Amino acid sequence: MKVAIAGYGVVGSGVAEMLIKNRETIAQAIGQDICLEYVVDIREVDLPEDVELTDDIDRVLGDPDVKVLFETIGGARIAYEYTQKALSRGIGVITSNKELVATRGDELRELARQKGAWYLCEAAVCGGVPVLRPLKTDLAGNRILHLNGIVNGSTNFLLTRMEETRMTFNAALAEAKSLGYLEADPTADVDGLDARRKLAILANAAFGARLSDDRLIPTTGIGRVTQRDLHAARLMGGALKLIAHARRTEEGWTGWVHPSFVPDGHPLVGVRDVFNGLCVNGDCVGDVMFYGQGAGRLPTASALIGDLVELARNLDRPVSCDVLPVVPFVAPDEEPVRAVIRVEGDVLPLCEAIPVEDVRSDGPLNAVLTTDMPLKELKERIGIVRRMGSELGVPLIGLC
Amino acid sequence: MKVAIAGYGVVGSGVAEMLIKNRETIAQAIGQDICLEYVVDIREVDLPEDVELTDDIDRVLGDPDVKVLFETIGGARIAYEYTQKALSRGIGVITSNKELVATRGDELRELARQKGAWYLCEAAVCGGVPVLRPLKTDLAGNRILHLNGIVNGSTNFLLTRMEETRMTFNAALAEAKSLGYLEADPTADVDGLDARRKLAILANAAFGARLSDDRLIPTTGIGRVTQRDLHAARLMGGALKLIAHARRTEEGWTGWVHPSFVPDGHPLVGVRDVFNGLCVNGDCVGDVMFYGQGAGRLPTASALIGDLVELARNLDRPVSCDVLPVVPFVAPDEEPVRAVIRVEGDVLPLCEAIPVEDVRSDGPLNAVLTTDMPLKELKERIGIVRRMGSELGVPLIGLC
Repeated sequence: MKVAIAGYGVVGSGVAEMLIKNRETIAQAIGQDICLEYVVDIREVDLPEDVELTDDIDRVLGDPDVKVLFETIGGARIAYEYTQKALSRGIGVITSNKELVATRGDELRELARQKGAWYLCEAAVCGGVPVLRPLKTDLAGNRILHLNGIVNGSTNFLLTRMEETRMTFNAALAEAKSLGYLEADPTADVDGLDARRKLAILANAAFGARLSDDRLIPTTGIGRVTQRDLHAARLMGGALKLIAHARRTEEGWTGWVHPSFVPDGHPLVGVRDVFNGLCVNGDCVGDVMFYGQGAGRLPTASALIGDLVELARNLDRPVSCDVLPVVPFVAPDEEPVRAVIRVEGDVLPLCEAIPVEDVRSDGPLNAVLTTDMPLKELKERIGIVRRMGSELGVPLIGLC
Repeated sequence: MKVAIAGYGVVGSGVAEMLIKNRETIAQAIGQDICLEYVVDIREVDLPEDVELTDDIDRVLGDPDVKVLFETIGGARIAYEYTQKALSRGIGVITSNKELVATRGDELRELARQKGAWYLCEAAVCGGVPVLRPLKTDLAGNRILHLNGIVNGSTNFLLTRMEETRMTFNAALAEAKSLGYLEADPTADVDGLDARRKLAILANAAFGARLSDDRLIPTTGIGRVTQRDLHAARLMGGALKLIAHARRTEEGWTGWVHPSFVPDGHPLVGVRDVFNGLCVNGDCVGDVMFYGQGAGRLPTASALIGDLVELARNLDRPVSCDVLPVVPFVAPDEEPVRAVIRVEGDVLPLCEAIPVEDVRSDGPLNAVLTTDMPLKELKERIGIVRRMGSELGVPLIGLC
């Protein structure tokens, strides 16, 4: 069986390396040998022996022996065009491109279904950690009730470094850039957009959400997080993490991406550095967690090859695991949340405005834990207190 | 599609409950409706409506519409007979029975292969937590290098309670029995035999180990663990857990089940109560952890239904994921290990006998951390020191 890679950057070259290095292991898992025949790229790149470099996607897709295209280009333009062409010819596409999956995935999935081709994207969420296939197979007999994830390794690294060394956000940002953990323009990570895309893909696997509803998910990044917010979380007996949250509701599903308070003892509290973790709650299985490296060249390649193993075992049969109905997104306004709020100075105005469960102080810094109340109402009341002149931090939505 | 359940105890009735409660969710995942037609049991049990109770396995397997048998009998006698009969007719068998899989699984797998039937046992390891399928699909392109698991919930509960309340082993045992977390005869759990069986099944999925080599795995349970051992682990900056360990070697694979020192910060250190956790290390993916409820009625049913989802999607095709070569077990004698050893009183004889990295003291209790040395040699030297009259605890094999 022949395969091709489109886009020979960090991830694409990782796939090539793994295909060659673990050729025997992969052949054993699939039951046949996999041959990397083409790499499609416009740059002059160094390729392994016997692999042909070309910029002509049509010629590659026209080779009747090519059964799978790895799309590791990124972005939603050329990647879309190539994916669309491959699926139209009934060629399976395996991708790590969460931007494309979140923005055009609904349409591409439908095309794949019509053409009897597979479009798989395990690598788009939590890198090498298996999450989508377990949701769609192992846990598929459960009604998934809710999930919470640390799905962006870069921001988790920033928060971990700020916590460990007490450095500022900007200093941590500079360090992460120098280590190659952040893009030159880190906006998509820092503002939570990357996490939001991954949440949409997870909600699709868990509830049957529309992928493009990613745009509707309320999202707050970590750009405004300070040492004092981290300190407030510690004071309250936990840690500050950027959490992607989704929950089944009566009418559909809801969710958000937001800096959150994770109490000590919660399985996600130990997820540090560039690691990812996902907690899923199913009506029968209870809580299950998946944990590992959410990014990186070979961990991401591992997930792409996992998809190849499934695809190659099922090449000649209809796509069977994407049959979920489309479930609507509902804004989380009415969702009951708990929050930890940092207050500098007088804590009284806040305690008068919201129902409070616990207050802890360390000098002029106070941390207030609210009881469950609807998210929208909580935000309104916090807004009022802020306008009255109190200095409050970003409210950290609490996980239980 | 019709299915039958053999053995209507805790797990079997959980499967029935899940099939009925989540009928729609399961039908969506599979693409067709699943009908529970028969329960095979010799007891008078209360069944859901329209399910037939019978003690005649031959009649059930003779129904041409029955495609899957859930074997939830336990033990290796009747369960073996029924499984053998079903597979011989090409009927798929899904089981949670680790005893049968570990003792006769090689033979039953071979029979399944010959007959083109499926024999799946995800529920036999870590209950509801997906581990076998991720190893065989998602991570199948990796060479798995090693794995460490807390795979027995009962003993993990005992150790957690001893740690939390400082109660004795026997008091914790009595409490676990009263809560229904332990069998009337808890030997298989306490002596590590249950963990050993699960380790053999994991090593099969990870390395292609022979299932029946379970008998060869050196195993030490927690029956001799005292408060002082737990204290020594804390003193050294970690916790005591019963760990099932396996590692790929040049000649095959090796492993053990043993009370172990898990340092703070290791992902397994937070696995408490009846929860299970498995850390897998693959050559490309790095460390991945799976975590959740390792036992219980509905979590176990969830894993059995996950197998049903896979089986039903692949009913008409050859079994494709059990093609691993048989890799021999090698005794872990030469495996380099680190250990934490508890010493009461004079620490000098031990420090003279073994290379030591760290010693910490609390009154007369000392904890000694060795550096890496071969397991067999370590045990011999500890034996010598013990014969010289020093009071030493069970050496806790250390995880890094």
